[in-house]
Amino acid sequence: MTATTVKEEIYLDQAKKLSVFFAKDAAQRDKEGGTPKQQKDAIRQSGLLNLLIPQKYGGEGGRWSTALAIVRELAKGDAALGHLYGYHSLFVSDIRIKGTEEQQAYFYPLSVQQQAFWGNASNPLVESLKGDKQLQGYLLNGTKAFGSGSPDSQYLWLSFNDRETGQYLNGVVPTDRTGITVKDDWNAMGQRQTGSGNVDFKNVRIEEHEVIRDFVENPTPFSTIGASLSQIILTNVFIGSAFGAIEEAQNYTASKTRPWLTSGVEKASDDPGILRKYGELWIQAKAASALADEAALILDEAWEKGKKLTEEERGNLAVHVAAANVFAGNAALDITSKIFEVMGARSVHAEYGYDRFWRNVRTHTLHNPAEYKLRTVGNWVLNQQYPIPNPYA
Amino acid sequence: MTATTVKEEIYLDQAKKLSVFFAKDAAQRDKEGGTPKQQKDAIRQSGLLNLLIPQKYGGEGGRWSTALAIVRELAKGDAALGHLYGYHSLFVSDIRIKGTEEQQAYFYPLSVQQQAFWGNASNPLVESLKGDKQLQGYLLNGTKAFGSGSPDSQYLWLSFNDRETGQYLNGVVPTDRTGITVKDDWNAMGQRQTGSGNVDFKNVRIEEHEVIRDFVENPTPFSTIGASLSQIILTNVFIGSAFGAIEEAQNYTASKTRPWLTSGVEKASDDPGILRKYGELWIQAKAASALADEAALILDEAWEKGKKLTEEERGNLAVHVAAANVFAGNAALDITSKIFEVMGARSVHAEYGYDRFWRNVRTHTLHNPAEYKLRTVGNWVLNQQYPIPNPYA
Amino acid sequence: MTATTVKEEIYLDQAKKLSVFFAKDAAQRDKEGGTPKQQKDAIRQSGLLNLLIPQKYGGEGGRWSTALAIVRELAKGDAALGHLYGYHSLFVSDIRIKGTEEQQAYFYPLSVQQQAFWGNASNPLVESLKGDKQLQGYLLNGTKAFGSGSPDSQYLWLSFNDRETGQYLNGVVPTDRTGITVKDDWNAMGQRQTGSGNVDFKNVRIEEHEVIRDFVENPTPFSTIGASLSQIILTNVFIGSAFGAIEEAQNYTASKTRPWLTSGVEKASDDPGILRKYGELWIQAKAASALADEAALILDEAWEKGKKLTEEERGNLAVHVAAANVFAGNAALDITSKIFEVMGARSVHAEYGYDRFWRNVRTHTLHNPAEYKLRTVGNWVLNQQYPIPNPYA
Amino acid sequence: MTATTVKEEIYLDQAKKLSVFFAKDAAQRDKEGGTPKQQKDAIRQSGLLNLLIPQKYGGEGGRWSTALAIVRELAKGDAALGHLYGYHSLFVSDIRIKGTEEQQAYFYPLSVQQQAFWGNASNPLVESLKGDKQLQGYLLNGTKAFGSGSPDSQYLWLSFNDRETGQYLNGVVPTDRTGITVKDDWNAMGQRQTGSGNVDFKNVRIEEHEVIRDFVENPTPFSTIGASLSQIILTNVFIGSAFGAIEEAQNYTASKTRPWLTSGVEKASDDPGILRKYGELWIQAKAASALADEAALILDEAWEKGKKLTEEERGNLAVHVAAANVFAGNAALDITSKIFEVMGARSVHAEYGYDRFWRNVRTHTLHNPAEYKLRTVGNWVLNQQYPIPNPYA
Repeated sequence: MTATTVKEEIYLDQAKKLSVFFAKDAAQRDKEGGTPKQQKDAIRQSGLLNLLIPQKYGGEGGRWSTALAIVRELAKGDAALGHLYGYHSLFVSDIRIKGTEEQQAYFYPLSVQQQAFWGNASNPLVESLKGDKQLQGYLLNGTKAFGSGSPDSQYLWLSFNDRETGQYLNGVVPTDRTGITVKDDWNAMGQRQTGSGNVDFKNVRIEEHEVIRDFVENPTPFSTIGASLSQIILTNVFIGSAFGAIEEAQNYTASKTRPWLTSGVEKASDDPGILRKYGELWIQAKAASALADEAALILDEAWEKGKKLTEEERGNLAVHVAAANVFAGNAALDITSKIFEVMGARSVHAEYGYDRFWRNVRTHTLHNPAEYKLRTVGNWVLNQQYPIPNPYA
Repeated sequence: MTATTVKEEIYLDQAKKLSVFFAKDAAQRDKEGGTPKQQKDAIRQSGLLNLLIPQKYGGEGGRWSTALAIVRELAKGDAALGHLYGYHSLFVSDIRIKGTEEQQAYFYPLSVQQQAFWGNASNPLVESLKGDKQLQGYLLNGTKAFGSGSPDSQYLWLSFNDRETGQYLNGVVPTDRTGITVKDDWNAMGQRQTGSGNVDFKNVRIEEHEVIRDFVENPTPFSTIGASLSQIILTNVFIGSAFGAIEEAQNYTASKTRPWLTSGVEKASDDPGILRKYGELWIQAKAASALADEAALILDEAWEKGKKLTEEERGNLAVHVAAANVFAGNAALDITSKIFEVMGARSVHAEYGYDRFWRNVRTHTLHNPAEYKLRTVGNWVLNQQYPIPNPYA
Repeated sequence: MTATTVKEEIYLDQAKKLSVFFAKDAAQRDKEGGTPKQQKDAIRQSGLLNLLIPQKYGGEGGRWSTALAIVRELAKGDAALGHLYGYHSLFVSDIRIKGTEEQQAYFYPLSVQQQAFWGNASNPLVESLKGDKQLQGYLLNGTKAFGSGSPDSQYLWLSFNDRETGQYLNGVVPTDRTGITVKDDWNAMGQRQTGSGNVDFKNVRIEEHEVIRDFVENPTPFSTIGASLSQIILTNVFIGSAFGAIEEAQNYTASKTRPWLTSGVEKASDDPGILRKYGELWIQAKAASALADEAALILDEAWEKGKKLTEEERGNLAVHVAAANVFAGNAALDITSKIFEVMGARSVHAEYGYDRFWRNVRTHTLHNPAEYKLRTVGNWVLNQQYPIPNPYA
Repeated sequence: MTATTVKEEIYLDQAKKLSVFFAKDAAQRDKEGGTPKQQKDAIRQSGLLNLLIPQKYGGEGGRWSTALAIVRELAKGDAALGHLYGYHSLFVSDIRIKGTEEQQAYFYPLSVQQQAFWGNASNPLVESLKGDKQLQGYLLNGTKAFGSGSPDSQYLWLSFNDRETGQYLNGVVPTDRTGITVKDDWNAMGQRQTGSGNVDFKNVRIEEHEVIRDFVENPTPFSTIGASLSQIILTNVFIGSAFGAIEEAQNYTASKTRPWLTSGVEKASDDPGILRKYGELWIQAKAASALADEAALILDEAWEKGKKLTEEERGNLAVHVAAANVFAGNAALDITSKIFEVMGARSVHAEYGYDRFWRNVRTHTLHNPAEYKLRTVGNWVLNQQYPIPNPYA
């Protein structure tokens, strides 16, 4: 893993404390769904929301590898919170990737000042939000699904299509802009507090300076790295979930699991079969984190290079992130299913809610199919071809 | 698979109809938990509860392989119902295994006449129900956990220990016997309508003719096959769950899944990656059912032999059933987790409740750890040693 | 598994004896490669070569399920011999599938009388053998690769293309026909005594009555089941290899493996980790055999129906055989690699040659890629579509 | 991975060149077995043998992480050579770990001057070499098995037991010392040129200054890290083998593999199934290398600390190395078996010898059973207990 600075250690300590706080009632909040207002506010107060904002705009000027370590740490306690923090970091960063320096200068100080949490309405797979060109800016109408982080957010990162030309554009608006209704209707089997539901737009004004179009007018490899950011965030949500599951299991086995009647051991924690399985689970999680940490370093370099990033460097980042994502997703699915085997029959009681780990991972491993990321990686290994940039590769 | 008679085909047709009926609101009832009264009544009316009861006592005199095919079929629609039917069959059969001919003659006609569903209070791992010897029978006090099928049952199969001698005994009492409280407090992450909660006993009378002790006084290999029955029932619950999950997924992919944006196919159902995965899932389920069917035939033979069953035949049954159980459990875990990969990101919506398949399988694969069954099988393969009979081997 | 007749039991006993004989020097012969003349002669003398030939033509009129049980049994001792016997059975059967009744009447009595072993020169993937039409029959020139069983054979099943029309035809010629050179140049990493090398044809006459063209003139679903026959034969070679490997390992562990220094057990065969692994290996092999046995019964029915076989029945056979083949191949690969883990570091000595099991399985799992069989199965599960018949599906 | 210095880049470049040279006839030399004299001489001339020897004794003073990167690179071309170089590094380092400063001062300059390759006769599992105490030193008699690197070596690291006291001691002697016979009789299914056969000792003198006993007299956690060194070397042999196999496969698929007849693609390298599998293979190898690189950094720190290494740091190293070793072994087994699936049926030709990758990995994954390393890791995860030091943990 990358060597960390003193400042980064402090951020991580904060993340650890937040994570412990989140873990306390994570099972209960998973049942309830909805918005973890108190928990989001705790993140706001921690200052971690400003990590990736450049220092000249009042932020911390931190590295992506640090942001991802925080995502992982938060996800250990509650995968939904890890997700919300990670995606906030993504939307904030999207301005730097796809917008102009002026837009950074405009939005970042506002965001810092407001301790703003950013959500989105930008699902790129469906053209369900249309913009009608005005003299200045657009008038937006339609609905976007999968709006993670939209409830209890201050800003929304959004995507829409110019109704006339079909052009795909991004933008940022304050969530309380007139005409926006955050439906807060996410009701899935996992990641239940990520607020990934629908956002409605009815005659919503987006001003010209809020429209993100630099990536269209001055396209660079750097302006297409959003797919990798999104993937590496989820990668770390998976890894955090896996370690969180192992930790809960470890506590349970050590304190509650009874030795099997023919085991010949006095404590379940001495059973060679249980020891072996803990070894297997942890090694998988650890391999996932090692791979993800390598990818994070590649991202740090790419982030540093900014608009100077070459196509090849962009491709290299995409391949390594895809690899880390697939591995972490599969590892986390396996781990979160198998923890029950080291805890035993009574660990299925609903009060523990231990199934939430698997449900959380299963839910967000689907947004970007492993099958296609595997082909992406394979095409590079076999044919030395990098993926053609798209919102998922 | 075993050739089936015309009569058996009729049973299976009934099971299929019931299964379709159960599937309709299985997702909703999974959320609610509690007792599937209407569904259990439908099974009662089907006559399938009498399948294993000998014809001379008014039953159908059916084979275990048929009962297990029914379990599998019901579990396709709803794993909890498959479980309830299977365990009913187990408790009814326990009288034949461990009791006397007189007890069969007493209980079976009653059961047939009442269309009785049997539940239990017989978890053998904890000595939490004590019997105080009376002139005739015992007075029972205590609690038993994991009382699957106890709510809405007519009879309870139970186990208790003589408070003075510690002797382990079984028994059958009507569920409405004075002093019995079925707590109906099962609240687990899966198999939520199996009613596997606590049953309290406060000064409950069990008459001498209700006490099952023939297996103590006249022990035979046959009287110890309960472990195999329980395991092979769950085996078929797993298999039914797996096929049920594949069927739901198939419907979803065919009607709702969108082709991936870089897939180059018009329909998701033409995607070679999706086709491959359906192949993998189905083959696993099919291998599990083939293995279970072989074990069912061994059970049919053992059942036929009854008290003439030799130790070796008992051991052979135990090994094959353990093998089938481990394989089916693992296959079903894998299948029920992977179905989401062929359905896509929107299949996680809570209304579908597709996670119930995994939660159901995960819950009941823990009752008898795969680790120990693997050692049981391995000890036979390597050392030609059959397991020492216990309630789980 | 199918109930077996007394006669079938006798065949299987013979196969068992042959298998034990083959196993004795299988490791040595694997090193040498070449042709197992003595072993093939032993099969000749056993009469098993006539199993599938109808009784009216002097054969045994046996079932395919019996032939496959023999393949599996022989493969336990030596996978190459299982393969040779299985493919002999295939080529003999090809006459019934694709030829005329007259051709059966002509070839079968000859084959029985000569205790003939059949090989082939019929790789369908490459059009490397051309036939020039003569007044009667063809003159053949070219080479065919992958000619399994061609060395030490009496007859060759062959495929060629009419040079002028391109038409694909089959045929049978005595191997000693003038102009044929069996190169016997197979030199692969596995299945080293299957003689799967090149066969050269230089102005070789094939008479009209030796040309197989009924499948062209009177095509039926039955005439296309060769792909399934080939696959189910290899399926049983894999399964035999797997059980053979487990048996060798079991002997080794029981007699030679030392307990690990921190194991705390006196004998390696008491190590819970080793017991568990034997359980895992055997269960996989057993699941493979259960699945293959189900497919064999479907084949028996199809074989019985002959030209009355419907397209749907043909498709159903193809799907079930493909499923059994993929599963058995993967199981055998896994088992033959993992046996070393239950034997220990000294089991790698070259004198044992235990790597031959994996090399054999790995070699012949490649002839018909699992990927495409999985898609075949998946296309049926998802879309209810049977494969379009080709030489591999 | 750790940032590398310019000097380390030069070492790695040399390793790469050597690896390409080794790969040329690796398949042929695998068949022959014996000693790769020419290849070992090339390593001698490269100067890489002195990498870990401190600069004050004429060596390069390099880091273990660099030595391991070289092992991995060499193993890509030929796993036997990677093994020989890695174990040489181990035996040279053993002096620093278990001997005195004086012994370093004595042996290291000699080793540098002679461009010496070190082998061993030190298998700790069997007490088959006895030392009779002399006035000075011992007289050695007996045999040691598994003497990797003993043929064509200048020095032998050895272990023996004092015949009288049973005390376990180490020592170093020139391989040409009177009475030593390197049998060069290693004949295994894999790693065939590692010379891991028997070494006989007949009245062999070992002088007092050659006896290594500081680890007995002044035991420290550092003096017990040999188990971790050995494991992390093999870890990198596995990883090198895996990447080497992928590279060979990639060349083959790109140049020789034909598209499958129903694939619908023009080149095999466009087949989505083949692309996916390359993705899977590479990701596994990459995860293994990421995990191993993390462990290498922990080793670098431990190596730096030397005798100041605490028990906890020693335990932490042992756990992370065990984890990396198990993961890499399993990944390499899987990869080296599956490469055939992306190459196709013709890749089994003996001339390619592609099975050597699997045979090599399988052979050396057995020396230290994964089962026990998994329990070691699990015992730390679950119980926070580090392994009790022994030659394998």
